[in-house]
Amino acid sequence: MNGLDSAIRDAGAAAYAAYGASVDANVRYLTRFRTSDPVVYMQKSGERGMIVVPQMEHERAVRESTAAVVTRADAGYLEYIKAGESRWRATAHMIADLAGGPVLVPATFPLALARELESFHPVFVDAANTVEGMRAVKTPEEIERIRSVQRVTEAALDRGLSLIRASIPRGGLLRRDGAPLTAEAVRTEMHTFLLAHGCRGVDTIVSCGLDTALPHNAGAGPLREDEPIVIDIYPQHEQTGYYADMTRTVVKGEPSPEIREMYEAVRDAKTLGISMIRAGATGADLYQAVVEFFRDRGYESDTRGFIHSLGHGVGLEIHEEPSLGPHGGALVAGNVVTVEPGLYYPGTGGVRLEDMGAVTETGFDRFTQYGEELTL
Amino acid sequence: MNGLDSAIRDAGAAAYAAYGASVDANVRYLTRFRTSDPVVYMQKSGERGMIVVPQMEHERAVRESTAAVVTRADAGYLEYIKAGESRWRATAHMIADLAGGPVLVPATFPLALARELESFHPVFVDAANTVEGMRAVKTPEEIERIRSVQRVTEAALDRGLSLIRASIPRGGLLRRDGAPLTAEAVRTEMHTFLLAHGCRGVDTIVSCGLDTALPHNAGAGPLREDEPIVIDIYPQHEQTGYYADMTRTVVKGEPSPEIREMYEAVRDAKTLGISMIRAGATGADLYQAVVEFFRDRGYESDTRGFIHSLGHGVGLEIHEEPSLGPHGGALVAGNVVTVEPGLYYPGTGGVRLEDMGAVTETGFDRFTQYGEELTL
Repeated sequence: MNGLDSAIRDAGAAAYAAYGASVDANVRYLTRFRTSDPVVYMQKSGERGMIVVPQMEHERAVRESTAAVVTRADAGYLEYIKAGESRWRATAHMIADLAGGPVLVPATFPLALARELESFHPVFVDAANTVEGMRAVKTPEEIERIRSVQRVTEAALDRGLSLIRASIPRGGLLRRDGAPLTAEAVRTEMHTFLLAHGCRGVDTIVSCGLDTALPHNAGAGPLREDEPIVIDIYPQHEQTGYYADMTRTVVKGEPSPEIREMYEAVRDAKTLGISMIRAGATGADLYQAVVEFFRDRGYESDTRGFIHSLGHGVGLEIHEEPSLGPHGGALVAGNVVTVEPGLYYPGTGGVRLEDMGAVTETGFDRFTQYGEELTL
Repeated sequence: MNGLDSAIRDAGAAAYAAYGASVDANVRYLTRFRTSDPVVYMQKSGERGMIVVPQMEHERAVRESTAAVVTRADAGYLEYIKAGESRWRATAHMIADLAGGPVLVPATFPLALARELESFHPVFVDAANTVEGMRAVKTPEEIERIRSVQRVTEAALDRGLSLIRASIPRGGLLRRDGAPLTAEAVRTEMHTFLLAHGCRGVDTIVSCGLDTALPHNAGAGPLREDEPIVIDIYPQHEQTGYYADMTRTVVKGEPSPEIREMYEAVRDAKTLGISMIRAGATGADLYQAVVEFFRDRGYESDTRGFIHSLGHGVGLEIHEEPSLGPHGGALVAGNVVTVEPGLYYPGTGGVRLEDMGAVTETGFDRFTQYGEELTL
């Protein structure tokens, strides 16, 4: 039984069904089963959820999944396939048999599967995003999982920054043993460390100079003296699937006055944002407060300046509910969110700082403990 | 222009639309843009495809994507959001404006988005799986990308097997410097190597002993003497997104007669399967030939024995078209497929061997060059 049960009843449905591999965070959350091939999750009103898997995954699913396990063969799928039904049709047929009535499905349910399913029972979209809502409020166990990924993340960042700190500039380039220190080398150092600690680095950003003016530029090539270096690192734990997320901006040498001023504004904006977090505060209010703060410091929030939201939820997805953006709703205790103001000016560069933590009734339980000095 | 154009016309649609992040291989294929947040791909009949992205991704998308780039703001999305429309409604509204008529969408198109879109224009599901079909036939450039990932994969496997080869058994356990050599250590060795060569190891299987009887058991703990060790490694190239895939089974010491006999049957089944590959052969025929071959050797293909398909396509997904399973259709030149017979018996163990290559008019261009000795 879980929070889905009342959603099923409220919709007048007999069951909830989802379809996806474990890159689908809803499916992973409901099943705790790791698979690169799609499975069906099915929860009948008032009953425990079940997962429908191929025969070859049966024993592993029994071991790993928190849901009851049924094979596709036992659920009738293979007979429908043998009878010549398409993969979508046979899957829908099987879901219809299991549900025995109207089916509630997530917004991202595959259209082809829904259209086949509609020929058996009514199909209702869960417009309330029930599972996303459940995922957004973390249990103490989930919070500890995320916090432990954050610990590893900070240690990995420290390894990367150590390379930059120990580098020796010559001819404008940072060097290690005489050769240019590259974004790739710093990234590999961090990813190797993560790997040895059970985490996977995904598309970590190590960008330098004018590249930093594009917030999601992954960065490449030699790192340079006196220029901003943005490191945004968001690893996923291999076993549990939970992410952490943090960003630091550093300069080896002497930053320009513009970058230094941007840095101070971003740091103060982060402090402001964090100070406002508590259950009941809205993401929109937090975002707006930072927009106004930046405006007072002379920075716009449009196509330049502060061009993204203030933060986002983190869990089995790197970006999930709740949003700390212009349309973000009220925070609740147990949300895990980032606070990541940034400023971006083509021709000058970019600065971003990002911390992560849990919303509490009275404030913010910050997971991030790492320092935030601009110059190394 | 691409193969989608005739599908759009045949459906009587004005445009094709897809929605997803780059974990959606269709979206990645059509856009070549890496993003963890969903984007819209839109292709109007007779026109070049376009990608709709947030403002902050605009410049990066222009650099990276093969599609034309439009911002959500320019496509009207933000105005619909400001007017109070939901995220799905505003996205549908924007797609409807861009399409200007009926829309063809992939089978996996999100149901909530389709239902909103239907209030503007008819929505047709691409039942022919046009993009999956395009993806299944690789260009020479794609083949070289996959082949180069396979080269790195073999070098990584070699690092893993070197640890096993150099280990010294004592008390039934393989040891390195006296301490047990674990599945985790072998996996980390391979993943670290992959990382240094631009590839990401994902859930690599290193299983031993009775664990090998479950084909997708990831494996954990000490590796043992005289028992089968299955290594199934399928890394993804970080930049291009293409996968490779291979499996070897080895024993440090002396395998049981059952395992040795299974190994010989699997090796011969792989040779048989590969010998039958050419354009025009069907996946079902290949699969059936191996089922019959195993039967002649005394092995069943049911809930024990050969319990999975003979192989699958590989590309931007680890499992994609075509299938070498009981319902697999005709192969065409340019398909990249695995051939991976396996035998699994609870209480005895499992054996799997897997090669990968491209289907040609006359045969199989095998990418896998790695040896296949059972005993180390």
